[in-house]
Amino acid sequence: MQVKYKLWLDFNGRVFGDGPAKLLDRVVRTNSLRKAASEMGMSYNKAWRILNAAEQRLGFSLLDRAAGGSYGGGSRLTEKGRDLAERYKAFQADADVALMEVFERHFSDWVDIENDV
Amino acid sequence: MQVKYKLWLDFNGRVFGDGPAKLLDRVVRTNSLRKAASEMGMSYNKAWRILNAAEQRLGFSLLDRAAGGSYGGGSRLTEKGRDLAERYKAFQADADVALMEVFERHFSDWVDIENDV
Repeated sequence: MQVKYKLWLDFNGRVFGDGPAKLLDRVVRTNSLRKAASEMGMSYNKAWRILNAAEQRLGFSLLDRAAGGSYGGGSRLTEKGRDLAERYKAFQADADVALMEVFERHFSDWVDIENDV
Repeated sequence: MQVKYKLWLDFNGRVFGDGPAKLLDRVVRTNSLRKAASEMGMSYNKAWRILNAAEQRLGFSLLDRAAGGSYGGGSRLTEKGRDLAERYKAFQADADVALMEVFERHFSDWVDIENDV
């Protein structure tokens, strides 16, 4: 038995979650949306659409278009995009640890299920 | 800005989450699946199907059919069903507190977004 979850931020109905966060994280590391997309096994076009949709929802830019012309060439995050990406990554990691702890607290001694079925 | 999440338990691919948990919790309180369903604004038939599906997935009974003939009349939980319901409820409550704390830790000082958009 294990706990599973899906987590996201809600800015007055405008959502930011794992998909764009993972892309941003990889753009920070690779300085390229193309490489970030490739690492996640998705097309550049799809990655572009994911971030564009996130920017539309959030109301601010995540990627600095000046870096390479639109999203082409090298890509880097805006200051706000980098801030959000870093916070989200740390938040996600801590949330994971916290949820595992809570799960252990309530279910670690509950072995019936796994033995019986 | 706020954190949102969806949480569930996974028993080797067999899922147990908020829907059946809420129903079980209300059956404990009302001793009636019919009342539990009504409180959640769903038909008795739908409530029955939700719990039946959960039982099929989990591989053990949640409701004691002997209590009122199938799910009719008074309903009460099996020992295992009650155990799962109680643990899940406490787990869910603690998970909520833990996630809010983690969220606060990482985003409480991040007021840019809410002021700007």
